[in-house]
Amino acid sequence: MEYLNTIGRAAKAAAAHRLPAHVRNAILIESAAALRKKANVIIEANKQDVEAATEAGMKASFIDRLTLDEARVDSMAEGLEAVAALDDPLGETTQMKSLPNGLSIGQRSVPLGVVCMIYEARPNVTADAYGLCFKSGNAVILRGGKEALCGNMAIVNALQDVLERNGLPRAMVQLITQTSRDVTTALMKLNGYIDVLIPRGGEGLIKSVVENSTVPVIETGAGNCHIFIDKIADFAMAAAIVINAKVQRPGVCNACEKLLVHKAVAESFIPLICGELEAKGVEIRGDETVKSIMGRAVVKAEQFDWDTEYLDYIIAIKVVDDIDAAIAHIREYSTGHSEAIVTERYANAQKFLDEVDSAAVYVNASTRFTDGFEFGLGAEIGISTQKLHARGPMGLKALTSLKYVIYGDGQIRG
Amino acid sequence: MEYLNTIGRAAKAAAAHRLPAHVRNAILIESAAALRKKANVIIEANKQDVEAATEAGMKASFIDRLTLDEARVDSMAEGLEAVAALDDPLGETTQMKSLPNGLSIGQRSVPLGVVCMIYEARPNVTADAYGLCFKSGNAVILRGGKEALCGNMAIVNALQDVLERNGLPRAMVQLITQTSRDVTTALMKLNGYIDVLIPRGGEGLIKSVVENSTVPVIETGAGNCHIFIDKIADFAMAAAIVINAKVQRPGVCNACEKLLVHKAVAESFIPLICGELEAKGVEIRGDETVKSIMGRAVVKAEQFDWDTEYLDYIIAIKVVDDIDAAIAHIREYSTGHSEAIVTERYANAQKFLDEVDSAAVYVNASTRFTDGFEFGLGAEIGISTQKLHARGPMGLKALTSLKYVIYGDGQIRG
Repeated sequence: MEYLNTIGRAAKAAAAHRLPAHVRNAILIESAAALRKKANVIIEANKQDVEAATEAGMKASFIDRLTLDEARVDSMAEGLEAVAALDDPLGETTQMKSLPNGLSIGQRSVPLGVVCMIYEARPNVTADAYGLCFKSGNAVILRGGKEALCGNMAIVNALQDVLERNGLPRAMVQLITQTSRDVTTALMKLNGYIDVLIPRGGEGLIKSVVENSTVPVIETGAGNCHIFIDKIADFAMAAAIVINAKVQRPGVCNACEKLLVHKAVAESFIPLICGELEAKGVEIRGDETVKSIMGRAVVKAEQFDWDTEYLDYIIAIKVVDDIDAAIAHIREYSTGHSEAIVTERYANAQKFLDEVDSAAVYVNASTRFTDGFEFGLGAEIGISTQKLHARGPMGLKALTSLKYVIYGDGQIRG
Repeated sequence: MEYLNTIGRAAKAAAAHRLPAHVRNAILIESAAALRKKANVIIEANKQDVEAATEAGMKASFIDRLTLDEARVDSMAEGLEAVAALDDPLGETTQMKSLPNGLSIGQRSVPLGVVCMIYEARPNVTADAYGLCFKSGNAVILRGGKEALCGNMAIVNALQDVLERNGLPRAMVQLITQTSRDVTTALMKLNGYIDVLIPRGGEGLIKSVVENSTVPVIETGAGNCHIFIDKIADFAMAAAIVINAKVQRPGVCNACEKLLVHKAVAESFIPLICGELEAKGVEIRGDETVKSIMGRAVVKAEQFDWDTEYLDYIIAIKVVDDIDAAIAHIREYSTGHSEAIVTERYANAQKFLDEVDSAAVYVNASTRFTDGFEFGLGAEIGISTQKLHARGPMGLKALTSLKYVIYGDGQIRG
């Protein structure tokens, strides 16, 4: 597809520029200023998106995520400034060693090259993704939700103007403006130009990318997160953690979706936690044991429930025989995002950390902490639920690669 | 496909076993002994493969790679013993730190889970891949070339017997015995069971995996490797490096395929190197300048030549204006495997290391060193030419992932 080949070629050429950290940081700060200065233009453009979405009858939460105002543009600008302030992820050479033949060899952190982000109608992601990709020396191709196109074009235009003023190619950030499905599918197959594709959004988007992409993908997102309450656990702590993980923000991927309770404490803990959850408006679905403890108030959990990330005020509760059964259930149903145990037993804490195979495994803490800022990465481009390259919250380092650099003085292989 | 689902489910269950390093190492050593003890059975089985391949008129190099004898079985056994002797790649927790809220967080090296290898008719890969995957705590699904099936079955059976004797599931290593194309394509889409797919083989195999796979792939292999002779270079060193990189083993991915020569030294260096290359039986293809220097003896290099990994006694030579032109040519045509500069200029050495975006970038050394053993990894499961997860030679570490482990005492998110 010539449209995409042109974009890919320009991105690859732009990615070849190597800028020192102070130049990259200065451009990010100038970009923040440019977004603030162009706030009116951006907000005006975004209004067209919002009006179209309203006319199309999109729901309020969608419109809310789509809408830009002065505060939100300012927040995008602050994001760029924050990224400028982070340590440079590039140019560190580690594990430098001398080989017996006299070669010196090390691994240097370098940009991935061309990063492609496919995301939904959230215009703030446009600036955020650019900030992280530019800071890490990558060119970026953005394919945002088509409902956000006008606002995204205004944002990208402001960012490109800054690049141009600094003598750099505008193609360091490019927006896909042809938003048909065909173009998007072809974008996922732009091998040779795109080094990594990062989808950010709902299950459907991510599934489509995983199924169609021939370029390497970092899968992000789905979190069917479990909390296991062990036989010996502090009930007050357990309840606080479950409530926090379920209701503090139910629509995000690190929210708790499933509660597993050791059978020895089921009779005492389940009425307590169900009372607190119901008081917060959470619908409870339970297995047979939960139903028999709680009576008719509880909906029966079906196979669907154990498999599903609700992203809503719903939780499914299951009583398990012991920690092994809890771990086996998690192995069967988890999406590998975040799981927690609440326990007072040292051996079980260690066992859970050892045997649960998720990006983030917690003892006695809420799953809601799985987040680049909370983990101290300073930023986040998404949360990886695959095991290759980057797992869990991805900061600047996830946007870099390591290449071997080898210093010789004439060595040949014998 | 029920056949593959059964295999996938068994692999995932087997991968859940966590064995301490000393147990894994003991099993590898026992496996080496088992291969030696069963050498006759393995060689007999392999004979059926060799006979069938001979009847089918496969070429001698194919038959040679396919054939097992006592020495080759012993060499597979030695490989397992060598892997047993390597440091354990699992269980190291790095970057442990305390967050302001009191959470302790670190990253622990863990197995990837289920590794799938698709490779050609080289039965030694069967034992090698198992050794590395088992040592790194992974279950492995092997899909070797169908021409090697009988020998592979005998090898895998011997390895599985050792597992069973040790009370472990045979499914820690499984061989795909249904070798139809449909099954192989379905194998590439076994998401949920396979964590990573590593193809090892020729361009066709790798292309097919990249195009069809929906599970994460580590692309290995193709090496269109370049050597650039700078304006100021030691000709004797340059010639020794080019000869070594081209002819020491022309059929491998780290062999030199293209020579770029600075125009200032073209008149003097090209006749010299062409003479040496021709003396080794290398066919030379040149651009216009090379042809005009060398006369009719040189074949004209076409677009095809700059794009192609010959894996043969052929080299293409191009004269470039300067180091920037050399780097630009490499950016356009390299497969991102290994590139070298031969130079006496400090600034150009640094520039080449900085700007060439390949897995291994050399100053004054042969590209033939790009290899897990040469790089001191102690083993190699392949050479990655993609930028995600692992780049260049992949040892045990490439078969592991990092998960976050978080120790709390009741933290909830505010």
